[in-house]
Amino acid sequence: MIILGIDPGLRFSGFGILQKNQQRSLLLDYGLLKLSPKKKLQERVHIFYDFFTEKIKTCNVTDVALETPFLGKNAQNFLKLGYLRGLLYLLSAQHNLAVHEFSPRQVKKSVTGYGGASKEQVARMILRLFPKMEPPKKDDVTDALAVTLCGLWRNKNSFFV
Amino acid sequence: MIILGIDPGLRFSGFGILQKNQQRSLLLDYGLLKLSPKKKLQERVHIFYDFFTEKIKTCNVTDVALETPFLGKNAQNFLKLGYLRGLLYLLSAQHNLAVHEFSPRQVKKSVTGYGGASKEQVARMILRLFPKMEPPKKDDVTDALAVTLCGLWRNKNSFFV
Repeated sequence: MIILGIDPGLRFSGFGILQKNQQRSLLLDYGLLKLSPKKKLQERVHIFYDFFTEKIKTCNVTDVALETPFLGKNAQNFLKLGYLRGLLYLLSAQHNLAVHEFSPRQVKKSVTGYGGASKEQVARMILRLFPKMEPPKKDDVTDALAVTLCGLWRNKNSFFV
Repeated sequence: MIILGIDPGLRFSGFGILQKNQQRSLLLDYGLLKLSPKKKLQERVHIFYDFFTEKIKTCNVTDVALETPFLGKNAQNFLKLGYLRGLLYLLSAQHNLAVHEFSPRQVKKSVTGYGGASKEQVARMILRLFPKMEPPKKDDVTDALAVTLCGLWRNKNSFFV
């Protein structure tokens, strides 16, 4: 099982790729995809699609993990977040991947033990679990890794949720 | 200029394809894509993508017209509407199509002369403009043709909006 977890955004998308190796979780890749707001929406969507197509192929991804977003202040931004999620669903169909969606509470609980944990707490736990990882400048990366871990651990954790 | 107008939905997507031929608008294709709610989300997204890829190629589409949706009662349905729109933006980038977005008022005004027109009024105008067309069972088809026409007429109409 090789799982790609993504925290998608039209500006910054964090991602992590983990492999389940017996009892260990192997960090294959992680990072941040930046999309310039100067680019047209269709260009950004295209770059996002090509970027994750490449990651899925290179790492032989089998599963995708996503967090279910909630409506914020701006409905049109929320709709555009849907654009990127639609592409991830398409990629899942095209590459035959299983999709796992989790609420923000499930993700935080899975990683820190507490559903109301702060972003900083999540980031600290991720850096403790992957001590060789360089602390990323953006929360999006640790957020994505939290979703990835939640996807990886979901069977074990399903007893507690 | 060959324009594809779409009223996307996870259950029913209406579409129309019009060609600008001097002063005339030629109706190349129109119809309804039905997606079974029994199918998984990723399957539906995949069928939608393949269906419109085929239409774009077959009819040599150059432009896409869409209506900007507004947030309804259900935020998660609104988000999923974004999934399909994201695919249309991806298709536009992949096939080098221009994208035109219109508000519901702009579409209604363009087709009926009145921004507050009812769905029935829009449907009546569409059937008057394309008398050879079989009256469709679902509004989604006439709605899609209204968006398509709005895209086709946008230059002329831009003086009046």
